[in-house]
Amino acid sequence: MAKILDNIRQPNDIKKVPPKEYDQLAGEIREFLLESISKTGGHLASNLGVVELTMALHLCLDLPKDKIVWDVGHQSYVHKILTGRKDAFGGLRTFGGISGFPKIRESACDAFDTGHSSTSISAALGYARGRDLLGEDYTVVAVIGDGALTGGMAYEAINNAARMDKNFIIILNDNKMSISENVGGVSKYLNDIRMNESYIDFKEDVEAALRRIPRIGSSVVRSVKRSKDSIKQFLMPGGFFEDLGIDYMGPVDGHDIPQLVRVISAAKRKRKAVLVHVITQKGKGYEPAEEDPSAYHGVDKFDVKTGMPLKKSTQSTYTQIFSRTMLRMAAEDEKIVGVCAAMPYGTGLYKFSKQYPDRFFDVGIAEEHAVTFAAGLAAAGMKPYVAIYSSFLQRSYDQMIHDVCLPQHPVVFCIDRAGIVGADGETHQGILDLSYLCSIPGMNVFAPKNKYELYDVLKFSRTFDAPLAIRYPRGTAYGGLKQFRAPIEYGKSEILRTGARVAILAVGSMVETAWDVCARLAEENIDPALVNVRFVKPLDRKILEWLARDYEVIVTMEENVLRGGYGEAVAAYLSDLRCQDREKYGARLLKIGIPDVYVEHGNVDLLKESMGLDSLSVTQKIIKEYKKL
Amino acid sequence: MAKILDNIRQPNDIKKVPPKEYDQLAGEIREFLLESISKTGGHLASNLGVVELTMALHLCLDLPKDKIVWDVGHQSYVHKILTGRKDAFGGLRTFGGISGFPKIRESACDAFDTGHSSTSISAALGYARGRDLLGEDYTVVAVIGDGALTGGMAYEAINNAARMDKNFIIILNDNKMSISENVGGVSKYLNDIRMNESYIDFKEDVEAALRRIPRIGSSVVRSVKRSKDSIKQFLMPGGFFEDLGIDYMGPVDGHDIPQLVRVISAAKRKRKAVLVHVITQKGKGYEPAEEDPSAYHGVDKFDVKTGMPLKKSTQSTYTQIFSRTMLRMAAEDEKIVGVCAAMPYGTGLYKFSKQYPDRFFDVGIAEEHAVTFAAGLAAAGMKPYVAIYSSFLQRSYDQMIHDVCLPQHPVVFCIDRAGIVGADGETHQGILDLSYLCSIPGMNVFAPKNKYELYDVLKFSRTFDAPLAIRYPRGTAYGGLKQFRAPIEYGKSEILRTGARVAILAVGSMVETAWDVCARLAEENIDPALVNVRFVKPLDRKILEWLARDYEVIVTMEENVLRGGYGEAVAAYLSDLRCQDREKYGARLLKIGIPDVYVEHGNVDLLKESMGLDSLSVTQKIIKEYKKL
Repeated sequence: MAKILDNIRQPNDIKKVPPKEYDQLAGEIREFLLESISKTGGHLASNLGVVELTMALHLCLDLPKDKIVWDVGHQSYVHKILTGRKDAFGGLRTFGGISGFPKIRESACDAFDTGHSSTSISAALGYARGRDLLGEDYTVVAVIGDGALTGGMAYEAINNAARMDKNFIIILNDNKMSISENVGGVSKYLNDIRMNESYIDFKEDVEAALRRIPRIGSSVVRSVKRSKDSIKQFLMPGGFFEDLGIDYMGPVDGHDIPQLVRVISAAKRKRKAVLVHVITQKGKGYEPAEEDPSAYHGVDKFDVKTGMPLKKSTQSTYTQIFSRTMLRMAAEDEKIVGVCAAMPYGTGLYKFSKQYPDRFFDVGIAEEHAVTFAAGLAAAGMKPYVAIYSSFLQRSYDQMIHDVCLPQHPVVFCIDRAGIVGADGETHQGILDLSYLCSIPGMNVFAPKNKYELYDVLKFSRTFDAPLAIRYPRGTAYGGLKQFRAPIEYGKSEILRTGARVAILAVGSMVETAWDVCARLAEENIDPALVNVRFVKPLDRKILEWLARDYEVIVTMEENVLRGGYGEAVAAYLSDLRCQDREKYGARLLKIGIPDVYVEHGNVDLLKESMGLDSLSVTQKIIKEYKKL
Repeated sequence: MAKILDNIRQPNDIKKVPPKEYDQLAGEIREFLLESISKTGGHLASNLGVVELTMALHLCLDLPKDKIVWDVGHQSYVHKILTGRKDAFGGLRTFGGISGFPKIRESACDAFDTGHSSTSISAALGYARGRDLLGEDYTVVAVIGDGALTGGMAYEAINNAARMDKNFIIILNDNKMSISENVGGVSKYLNDIRMNESYIDFKEDVEAALRRIPRIGSSVVRSVKRSKDSIKQFLMPGGFFEDLGIDYMGPVDGHDIPQLVRVISAAKRKRKAVLVHVITQKGKGYEPAEEDPSAYHGVDKFDVKTGMPLKKSTQSTYTQIFSRTMLRMAAEDEKIVGVCAAMPYGTGLYKFSKQYPDRFFDVGIAEEHAVTFAAGLAAAGMKPYVAIYSSFLQRSYDQMIHDVCLPQHPVVFCIDRAGIVGADGETHQGILDLSYLCSIPGMNVFAPKNKYELYDVLKFSRTFDAPLAIRYPRGTAYGGLKQFRAPIEYGKSEILRTGARVAILAVGSMVETAWDVCARLAEENIDPALVNVRFVKPLDRKILEWLARDYEVIVTMEENVLRGGYGEAVAAYLSDLRCQDREKYGARLLKIGIPDVYVEHGNVDLLKESMGLDSLSVTQKIIKEYKKL
């Protein structure tokens, strides 16, 4: 049977679909999403939840003239399908294929690049202000989830949107949870609105009832009207948003296209900022995802029939090692508390949260608060472990400087997804953390070489009385090199092998690669020393001095941009040594790291190869240097 | 006459003062503040405004057992006076003297170090959670201004405070403005509460009136009660905070000590988070400050009688050059817009805001939003200039990465207070920006050597179609070296003089110092080359290659931490050159910059001397290197 979806080849094609076929089209989109994502992996539940909302937006808007800014952007698959990118889904999130997030360079219909949370209202407001200043006429819509609404930026933006006197639309895609369970006052507030289904009748009832009362009634109405804000709150839900100065419309059933089209059309007529509260069901239309939307937020390849992953890795991830170690340490030390920003599953704190609910704090998508809150916990005498991914901790740079490192509160940062993360791409690569962490006075930075060392450094952290950042990559934890397990000493690197002429200093994940490089070099009769850096900050100057004196080529290897990273710090220290004695410290330096660019999405190994971070490329570079000697 | 204030020598001494003498004590504190700050400079208006509030807090609390976290902390002078630090005020904000902000190391009564905005609720919440977990019993109070409430972190924290089931107090010190005029929805909301002075009577009126109506009335009450939240909002102000799940008390007259003590005591009895809304008058008790509180927010030495500054500098500051240039450029280009975060005066955008109100956006203390909003403006076709101080732009690190530099939106960052700022100290030094800006792929970073070059680079920025950060220091703009005004070319440094053997590369403010160093070196018969770096990123590799080849000592000078700064980037590039040809590129490298520490408050020249950044120290270091040749 011919599919309606086959006729959606470019933006606005959906407008040719007769309304009676909307449901069928929605079904076809869901079918396509399931079939496609089950083969490639990707974000599933959020996209299943916004099928009708996206269709309604495309029915009401004129793309690419009108602008939709998708918050986070993992829910933009339907938008991609409706703007002519359906056939590219086979290559979703693969090297050279389409991104899992909106990308301006991918389509004129992607108005703004997203990936991190809570940015959409700010960006969309910029668009709207620019439009008005240039005297242009288009509609700007920010689509933001209830989870993203726990981020402070969203609130800053709403606060600013209050001053709009031209049209500006915020769609609150309320799926009753963000990535996992929602937390805090805002969530409860939205829940209260949802629970109160009869709100529209109620509002009309009360107003009518008050007016019907002959004398006192109208005096009450007058009396109530004296306080404009109070009556607004009384007669309408969404008073929270109204208090912030923007109009509220809703709640609307996010799976009812005619109703959505009606409300969005009405919202377009407002000459101010308006928030349309849309209730959607995450995972809608696919039973396993409806039942456990968190499990189907981001998925690997899976069997559509059973909902089960096609292959389940049996090897431990660093996340799991962290998870288990936290449980063990927490049992021994009551002062240990865990803090995460809406990622109990992803960071590995879920079991901790169940075992020690009082000592676990999921603060929402609020990385800034998470870090300063942890500083407060430390000031009160607790030992906080803050688990935030490398690329999201960028949000807390100032808080780490100002609230943790300046007063030297003993907060431990457990930084997962440090290095190349793969399919999520540019916005999610954890390739800046060594640079931003090392720039902070008073910060200490450690990268474990394997799973045993992650365990060891977590144990070490328990009695370490200063800020400590531990960074480790996504995915399977390296289990090799278990024969090397020197006790962790503050500021000290670990020597894995000595050699002659060439010395390699490898950071964290690169130790595994470096070990392989050593084997390859041996085949060329090169016998390198290998040092597991461990502490990227402070530098182990003693070891560097020794290597600079006794070796001729020093190689640094790190999964981080070179700018501001470990290799540069080594270069700087070597230049200091050379000032002391140019002849004595004459070693050359070869720095292996990520160039000064954003790294695309794709397979991690492919990406590493493309940047020369794989063992073969590194070996070749070292041999080239060696031959110059 | 003996003063009551003389008897306040240590924490809790205030409790011995009889209530009838409170007003007199408040008067004496104000007198002391005026006398003292007029001699040292400091934050005046905010401290005059919180005299009674601070007294009431000290009357209700037991310090240092109880914890007060002062948001920003510039309003902590009265707290310092009441905790035994009055006699230290002669050295306020000077090198070795007491800080203008709370410092844990200064007093056990300073529970948390602050300086940046909107952190207090997060930190205090950490304290409260730690207290409860450790089974301790003390009161935790965050004191936050209405301005700081425009920062997203504060909202993130309030959202989390909603879950507290033990006592937690937030004092909203509402002085009807932050540093300058407040903006956005929240401000309007607070203003509405303030305007509605009869709210308590009103609440009782309505409830009584409704109940008095025989049949319909009680049905309305029942009907209203069905929606618990609506009636709460209806019958009480502060519904915004109640919506977020915390109790609201107020508004309270912030200059009425008995009322304040009553309300704070009541707040202490709550077993959840409560916000006490206190209305204060900024500058209270000093007429010039009452009339123009913004002008008396932070002051230099002044004449108490007239309110006039003791000496008014006649020389232009970089801020003024920026201010004037923006006006000139904006007149020529309608696409230019200005964005600042609650600092129209400080950043120099005030005149722009008056001349081009439609093209000016003060977003509140919301640096994250400011940057992404600017990215949105750029996406819409505008040319945004974002003016944020160096230490506050730390807050927007992720937004610069994610929303500006990744998509390469042409946003210009105008970064004032880059380098040592002096009296404000550790939290305000702008000594990390070169590191964090240069770590960002796709960012371009420029530092002008003098006021003419700031003008020139701003002109250059107009047609520069990528992100650009321009950093310049606080205070008087250097007017020397006007004979050097080579046109600005992307990525190119400016050669000020050639020489022999020694070459100095100086960044921005350090060019002035370097010029002096050259003169000193000439006396020693050393003839150095001098390069004005201009673009810290991208590196001018061509010039570096030339210098590394033709000179023997290369010196980098920057007012930034060495870690991740310009000197390290040079060290890294020189090491690359040496890999190419060790003999050809044999120059030593001497890096002058700020060590890896937080820099205290004090006189800028003294601080620079203490770190070896003054021209004499630099000269001596260069001579030392030179002698090794």
